[in-house]
Amino acid sequence: MTNENSGLRLDRRTLIKGAIASAATLSSAAAFASAPRGKLKEIRRAVDAGHEQALRRIQDWIRLPTVAAEQLNIEQGADYMMQLATEAGFKRVRRVATGGIPAVFGVLDVGAKHTVGLYFMYDVKQFDEPDWMSPPLEPVFFDHALGRALRARGAINHKGPEGTFLAAIHAFRSAGVELPVNLALLAEGEEEIGSPNLRNALNDAEVLAELQRTDAVFMPTAMQGQQGEMGISLGAKGVIECELIASGERWGRGPVQDIHSGMKASVDSPVWRLVEALSTLVKDGGNTPAIDGWYEHYRPLTDRQRAMIAKLNTSTTDAELKSALGLKRWMNDMPLQEAMERLASEPTVNIEGLVAGYTGPGGKTILPGRATAKLDFRIVPDMTAADCEAKLRAHLQKRGFGDIEIKVSGGYDPTETSETSGLVRAEQAFLEQRNIPHTITPRIAGSYPGYIYTGAPLRKPFNQFGLGYGGKAHAPDEFYLIDSNHPKIAGMREATMGYVEFLYALASAH
Amino acid sequence: MTNENSGLRLDRRTLIKGAIASAATLSSAAAFASAPRGKLKEIRRAVDAGHEQALRRIQDWIRLPTVAAEQLNIEQGADYMMQLATEAGFKRVRRVATGGIPAVFGVLDVGAKHTVGLYFMYDVKQFDEPDWMSPPLEPVFFDHALGRALRARGAINHKGPEGTFLAAIHAFRSAGVELPVNLALLAEGEEEIGSPNLRNALNDAEVLAELQRTDAVFMPTAMQGQQGEMGISLGAKGVIECELIASGERWGRGPVQDIHSGMKASVDSPVWRLVEALSTLVKDGGNTPAIDGWYEHYRPLTDRQRAMIAKLNTSTTDAELKSALGLKRWMNDMPLQEAMERLASEPTVNIEGLVAGYTGPGGKTILPGRATAKLDFRIVPDMTAADCEAKLRAHLQKRGFGDIEIKVSGGYDPTETSETSGLVRAEQAFLEQRNIPHTITPRIAGSYPGYIYTGAPLRKPFNQFGLGYGGKAHAPDEFYLIDSNHPKIAGMREATMGYVEFLYALASAH
Repeated sequence: MTNENSGLRLDRRTLIKGAIASAATLSSAAAFASAPRGKLKEIRRAVDAGHEQALRRIQDWIRLPTVAAEQLNIEQGADYMMQLATEAGFKRVRRVATGGIPAVFGVLDVGAKHTVGLYFMYDVKQFDEPDWMSPPLEPVFFDHALGRALRARGAINHKGPEGTFLAAIHAFRSAGVELPVNLALLAEGEEEIGSPNLRNALNDAEVLAELQRTDAVFMPTAMQGQQGEMGISLGAKGVIECELIASGERWGRGPVQDIHSGMKASVDSPVWRLVEALSTLVKDGGNTPAIDGWYEHYRPLTDRQRAMIAKLNTSTTDAELKSALGLKRWMNDMPLQEAMERLASEPTVNIEGLVAGYTGPGGKTILPGRATAKLDFRIVPDMTAADCEAKLRAHLQKRGFGDIEIKVSGGYDPTETSETSGLVRAEQAFLEQRNIPHTITPRIAGSYPGYIYTGAPLRKPFNQFGLGYGGKAHAPDEFYLIDSNHPKIAGMREATMGYVEFLYALASAH
Repeated sequence: MTNENSGLRLDRRTLIKGAIASAATLSSAAAFASAPRGKLKEIRRAVDAGHEQALRRIQDWIRLPTVAAEQLNIEQGADYMMQLATEAGFKRVRRVATGGIPAVFGVLDVGAKHTVGLYFMYDVKQFDEPDWMSPPLEPVFFDHALGRALRARGAINHKGPEGTFLAAIHAFRSAGVELPVNLALLAEGEEEIGSPNLRNALNDAEVLAELQRTDAVFMPTAMQGQQGEMGISLGAKGVIECELIASGERWGRGPVQDIHSGMKASVDSPVWRLVEALSTLVKDGGNTPAIDGWYEHYRPLTDRQRAMIAKLNTSTTDAELKSALGLKRWMNDMPLQEAMERLASEPTVNIEGLVAGYTGPGGKTILPGRATAKLDFRIVPDMTAADCEAKLRAHLQKRGFGDIEIKVSGGYDPTETSETSGLVRAEQAFLEQRNIPHTITPRIAGSYPGYIYTGAPLRKPFNQFGLGYGGKAHAPDEFYLIDSNHPKIAGMREATMGYVEFLYALASAH
């Protein structure tokens, strides 16, 4: 959900760095038909010719930030997404009501045998961090160690890579080359708040029918690491994001609003109540969920999954990884392999934020009437968001905390895609053909709403894929590499050609 | 500390409402000499003549808010305080270095036999509450049910009553009447952050010497309740105000800054650490301090103190009091007498505020690198702030929480003044002479830095005293009654005359 693409990146970048050897460990990819060389030359010329325009398209998009949490530029963002799709050649482009911020749908049917689904997000993370080197909504070029890069909110997450994919479609058309697959696009505007309504888009008969026609769905993403390496993800944890709110109002104890803190001697405190309730959710200092029944549907990693993770770790030193995360120690001082396994296997209860009473500088002697904890719960197969939410409610209820409001703002199930699916085989073939070192991650520590596609009713393979490089998603100075000076890392034009060739790989994988 | 005057008011207004009967229970006040009638008439004329100017003085003061927590108008506030003192006739008026925001000192020596100390505050509470009916720094007159009142930050806490006292001094001079006592003024600019440095003013030899000369010290305060009733306070709890800060930086575990919340599976959380540490400080859902040794110097209420509290409760219904506080229940559903006794007797651990990670609307999937709880600890005789701070540190240290930073922003000892002191006898005499119903509160639930005067080295009687009415200290629409339409409640001019007569009572009480 809100931070998941950076989660993906973290895993890939840090875990898979230079993992050349691991490519050999993958299940052998079938030989896929390459794209016809002559056509690729034509398309590459079109990519070069259209580059400035494609860049401008991304920059203009960045200047129109849709922020779901703030209800910022909702209609304008959907309009612009529709415009981008239409300009790229999609037909039947329209808003799809989801009960929340509208999704945008479109199809590009070229009469091909196979159809590929595209998942886009048109929203971005909040951009109010104080530490930007330049205004977050004004795309600025700067010299990154790896080449010329664009700095702005949304540069890597996700307007840059999505704009790069659109540039590929534009290039097919400019070059007069037919797309090798049909495309069905579903773009949402609530990715950063956990895609709470995306699933409702499948209630639209046309959307459902077109996505059912697809062989697989993917999200264009710039995924290369600092050595050009790539990581194929087979899944992600699910997540529930919610607020727990203790209040005198609902409790019937303590004050309904802030009162003088001297009254604490005789008046209950909703803040202490929240602290007490929170304490029941975990043990081991917050490291192990302690919610009743939480592990009922927990499925441990398989030997194959653990082996994949061991491969991931061969080329990453523990010290490098900790340094990238700003850590001195893993929890329990555990070794890297265990830390990586836990990232893939363990459910978590995390406090994203606490807000109660007086939050300004210094103090204010009040007994607050209300306290809020913002939590996220990561869940793994075969746990489901709905079941876990019910368990959380039952757990608090059983302990007498039924008055604590549980305000779920988003959540979805874990997602899994098979290592032997056409999508993953096409990805492997694409990378092997290009000699790009790569690994497979059984499950990332973050979450993305892949269950929409991998779960019922669609049950399609789904992941993120694409060449290119960027960083600092959800952080100040987010960037996307435009011109690479590294021979193994794709700049935007090479990433565009990557999508072109990947579409051919997808066409022949199914 | 920061909210203590409103604490005082709460206790008085709600507990003592109409407590006429209890006046009879007070220890018999000696017969004090009244002020000479002729002189009082002269002074009253001067009060009336000077009223508009006195009002303007308060209004101008309000427009210059000194806010210690925000370091707002520090020097200007001290200058203005010096100007007010000088204009009122104080001599040797000067800043006194305290290590913090400067105090202001001055003496008004008329060669009288007795000297009375005055404690003023020139700072005000933050004024950023969103719900003011008019701008908080623009004094506005409005029609209160009890008469014409002035609405602004500082109106009741404490510029209105202090300005009223100054008006009394002006009136003596205008009327050509000698003050019946000498005055020694100490004004501070950090009352609202807990008077962290006021005690250092006593390191100034002149300040110490002049205060040692006094018989008692008091703070002018508009203390009447809605029926005109008054409450004499014999003391207050002490307080420690501090932040507990858990951080990856100091802990050496968890992230040093916010990282992706997916990492929770393998990374410790400073937020959970704070929650865990907080949980050790209390039991009974936050209602009982559980800090090692906390009750070592706890002194229970005496029978006399409990009797005083019982008297306070005779005229206040439980329902009225709960309604005023926005409460449905006292903790443990206890009866009023027990609730009132706890307000006087029990130490507390209160969470004023929580701040961690993402605090905006919606969620943000981060694992925060830092979490802060703002706490206040109320302490009762014979507990001391220094000892309790040491116990808190030892408690956390012993449980392995030595990394949690304890940032003490203010604190001081409880204060007690004897029922038989000259100050209290003068107050009783004053009230009895005027037939003003009154009660004695053994100890208020809030705190004020009376220990400066009642503790070593001065050991003087100290409390707050004065006629007049106002409300909403530390809240939007703070006000001070200027023209009363209630026969038993003093408007500003009557309150001014109250101070005039009280000075005569003080002169004959010692």
